[in-house]
Amino acid sequence: MATTETQTWQLIASTYRNQTTAKLPSAWLVPTSITSTISETSSQNVLEIPRTCGILTEKELEITEKYDAVTLAGLLARGGLSSVEVTEAFCKRAAVAQQLTCCLTETMFDEGLERAKYCDDYLAKEGKTLGPLHGLPVSLKDSFNVKGVKSTIGFVSFIANEPCTTESAIVSILLSLGAVLYVKTNIPQTLMTADSQNFIFGRTLNPNSLHLTAGGSSGGEGALAALKGSILGVGTDIAGSIRIPAYCNGVTGFKPSTRRIPYGGQTGPGRVGSWALLASAGPLCRSVSDAKLFCESVLSKDCWQFDETAISAPWRYLQPQGKRLKLGYIRELEGWPLLPTIARVFDTSLKALTKAGHQVVDLSPLLPKDIMVDAMVVSFKMFSLDPKKTPWQNIAKSGEPLIPSINTIVVDGLDKFVPDLDSVWEMNVAAKAIKEAVRDVWVKEGLDAIMMPVHQSTAPKHDHYGAPPYTVFANFLDYPSVSLPFLKANKKLDEPYIRKDVTYTPTYEPEAIEGAPGGFQILGRNMRDEECLEVAGVVESILRGV
Amino acid sequence: MATTETQTWQLIASTYRNQTTAKLPSAWLVPTSITSTISETSSQNVLEIPRTCGILTEKELEITEKYDAVTLAGLLARGGLSSVEVTEAFCKRAAVAQQLTCCLTETMFDEGLERAKYCDDYLAKEGKTLGPLHGLPVSLKDSFNVKGVKSTIGFVSFIANEPCTTESAIVSILLSLGAVLYVKTNIPQTLMTADSQNFIFGRTLNPNSLHLTAGGSSGGEGALAALKGSILGVGTDIAGSIRIPAYCNGVTGFKPSTRRIPYGGQTGPGRVGSWALLASAGPLCRSVSDAKLFCESVLSKDCWQFDETAISAPWRYLQPQGKRLKLGYIRELEGWPLLPTIARVFDTSLKALTKAGHQVVDLSPLLPKDIMVDAMVVSFKMFSLDPKKTPWQNIAKSGEPLIPSINTIVVDGLDKFVPDLDSVWEMNVAAKAIKEAVRDVWVKEGLDAIMMPVHQSTAPKHDHYGAPPYTVFANFLDYPSVSLPFLKANKKLDEPYIRKDVTYTPTYEPEAIEGAPGGFQILGRNMRDEECLEVAGVVESILRGV
Repeated sequence: MATTETQTWQLIASTYRNQTTAKLPSAWLVPTSITSTISETSSQNVLEIPRTCGILTEKELEITEKYDAVTLAGLLARGGLSSVEVTEAFCKRAAVAQQLTCCLTETMFDEGLERAKYCDDYLAKEGKTLGPLHGLPVSLKDSFNVKGVKSTIGFVSFIANEPCTTESAIVSILLSLGAVLYVKTNIPQTLMTADSQNFIFGRTLNPNSLHLTAGGSSGGEGALAALKGSILGVGTDIAGSIRIPAYCNGVTGFKPSTRRIPYGGQTGPGRVGSWALLASAGPLCRSVSDAKLFCESVLSKDCWQFDETAISAPWRYLQPQGKRLKLGYIRELEGWPLLPTIARVFDTSLKALTKAGHQVVDLSPLLPKDIMVDAMVVSFKMFSLDPKKTPWQNIAKSGEPLIPSINTIVVDGLDKFVPDLDSVWEMNVAAKAIKEAVRDVWVKEGLDAIMMPVHQSTAPKHDHYGAPPYTVFANFLDYPSVSLPFLKANKKLDEPYIRKDVTYTPTYEPEAIEGAPGGFQILGRNMRDEECLEVAGVVESILRGV
Repeated sequence: MATTETQTWQLIASTYRNQTTAKLPSAWLVPTSITSTISETSSQNVLEIPRTCGILTEKELEITEKYDAVTLAGLLARGGLSSVEVTEAFCKRAAVAQQLTCCLTETMFDEGLERAKYCDDYLAKEGKTLGPLHGLPVSLKDSFNVKGVKSTIGFVSFIANEPCTTESAIVSILLSLGAVLYVKTNIPQTLMTADSQNFIFGRTLNPNSLHLTAGGSSGGEGALAALKGSILGVGTDIAGSIRIPAYCNGVTGFKPSTRRIPYGGQTGPGRVGSWALLASAGPLCRSVSDAKLFCESVLSKDCWQFDETAISAPWRYLQPQGKRLKLGYIRELEGWPLLPTIARVFDTSLKALTKAGHQVVDLSPLLPKDIMVDAMVVSFKMFSLDPKKTPWQNIAKSGEPLIPSINTIVVDGLDKFVPDLDSVWEMNVAAKAIKEAVRDVWVKEGLDAIMMPVHQSTAPKHDHYGAPPYTVFANFLDYPSVSLPFLKANKKLDEPYIRKDVTYTPTYEPEAIEGAPGGFQILGRNMRDEECLEVAGVVESILRGV
């Protein structure tokens, strides 16, 4: 690579980054006494800094901290809070979060406040809301197109693209529901790894401990949500990209069944026309109720009118059953030992669920050996079907290098895989067999949901996340899945779970991950997003009592 | 091809055919005075022969002719008719239909009557039905697997396969709903053409006029339904295979959205693992209400438990609205002039709908030029993505030749198409553009449905159907579509519609098609099968008054 070319992509990237940074109002800048301590090698927990840095008023702290989205939407609808004050609070807090974790890409503070004023005026004049998300600030992963704003998705070559002239389907729908848009959030170069780093905006840090990954690809959403700079954010997930960052940062994430929440009209890293494994759009938020609010609200619209690929299946309102649940679980994959923290988190969860009267059943002996790793291999082959390798072209065009995280995902046999048309047929047959095996166990056991880890470890240090067999399984099956936060790494409590007979990957470093959030996921059946959230809500309320 | 090999496939085929023919009870054999007049070059209408041939009793004629499936199911549930008498009536009538049109493959008369007795005993003993289709005979396209019965689907090489040890998902579901299975019906070799001919069972003839095609690929179902040898049959449709035979024979056919009605567990002509364009299973029947009964009943079960590929979306019960409908229509494709009969049928329909107070709007000027032919080209490319060309292997294995119909489907550029992985990406992009264009018009116009011909002609003579741009369009879009019968070819009434400025394909031969059924189709939106049937029901009742 020629030096001038190197300088060129670096200059282009830094110029653009500086432009976005310059948009932060000077009154919202965090003192250098704080920013000077921010580094990707620091183990600092910055979650309290928005509260202590003096930028937000007491009321703004209350607005951003005290509620979940359901409650806040209710207050906005009743006029108990104005959208302008709520939006300003979240803009400020997002600006602070950005300075702590590099979680934003584009800011739309002025546009957001203008929109908030419109919402307030509408409510005052019409005596009714614009919709169920009236006046509520909603953050968006960078891939969602907003008119007049660029979607660079972390490719330096995309800086040359004009600001969007069209908007993603979900953006149109959110606006029609009354939402206020105010920030877009950071992602990894290629969107296909769990470290949200790129050479335009930098690397998103985990606010629980800056030297840990914030996860990805919706990593900016995860860090922003944990810092309470967003009350409802929209991410996308094709291998775990909503659930991984929700988990790494300690918030709730929901990956719906594909085509349920409109996905269309985004800027993607890959070739247009992909088909073998589809991605979902879904919320990162504070509670299962918030995830439900998001889905219910979106599906109150005729989504097909906004996105031809969205399936027309209205939200089903379930009657709470209060019944004894039967949860199948997969605790650990052979050769992928759970790190002590996650072993404790998982066993504690199982115990709490059993104690609350629900039934849990170990699915591992009932499923074909290695089924989840096999599913991951097929999934990653499905991700590799573009002979033109478009994402790499998007990188090569600017001369920027690859981010290191990309090469940390090692999937068996993938390096030798050369896709052709026959391989598509073969992987469809392989996929069908796996899907049927899981369905058979589900039906035979009469399950309400499947519970499994999000990952074998908590958020590890940057660039150590590795392959995601647990999360991609839900995408592969096209099952909805909720990632629920639960407990935190605690070296004293975790110690009894240390096993001497295994090699942990990533390495177990109790000091490094101390305080990192734990959690797990609850998978439902395809297209039974409603039941999945219902079960997750029951589990959430049990675990809140632990 | 060696002579011995030729003899071999012919011998294998005739031996198997003779076995199936031998299963017809001698008491149900039609006199040779009638069978001697049956030929694929005769223009004879045989629709009245079941009534006149003396094989069915008066009560059996009443059972098979007087009701639609909804009414008959009601009678069976109330014990007004026994399943044994109903099943025997339909077995007899199907046996007669077979001798007139060669519409059957496998018969299961003994098994059907045994099952019918079980249904009657159950009702008598338990005082309740097995389900909404209690005791009702249902016919099946040959591709559906029934335990203990072969699914040769017209490949001589498949005769060597053992009888099925598993059953199709829809078969399990129909049985769980109380249905009685009694016949499987004829199809074309490869299932990919509109003439239901193969070298095992022969060619299905059109009972309206034997020298006309019965359509395909569910051609046996179409002929059987027209002869009232079935009251509810199940076909499959990937390019028109339910709607074409329904139309050619003058009955009602419904192609649901894909994955709505479970399709899994069939014997297919092609390679396992196909994906680009999916087929639907659906009913051929006597009325829109019957199609609704079928869908409602099937979806009252948790279909995913039977078929992992079935989408979990419960049937939605709509309130009849009585509102003024807005129907977009596509009357004629450029270069594909409607034959006079169909021009008259279509214009008469439009007039009747308008007179009834509904609004019709011509979509042709609103859609991109040639969109339907373009969609057909992409569809047929999607059908050609198997590098192994499995259907041709299935033919070659026995040495049987191709049926002539296959080479009558000429689609532009398809002969030169060599599929590779890049072509899949390209056709996905092309498909998306077409789907969005149709969606845009639908939304902009606020349509309730789209009305268009099933074909530019009525059923033509055998092997003259040609390419199916109208029907494959609904598969391409994945829109549900109802094929409704309306009027018949009448050379006197059709004469004013003859155009001198066009070349008709197939050739307009008024004498040859006299009395052939006309009709058209009503397309709904993807996954709005409920609304599609609702509109079709309104249209059906208006046209019944014409």
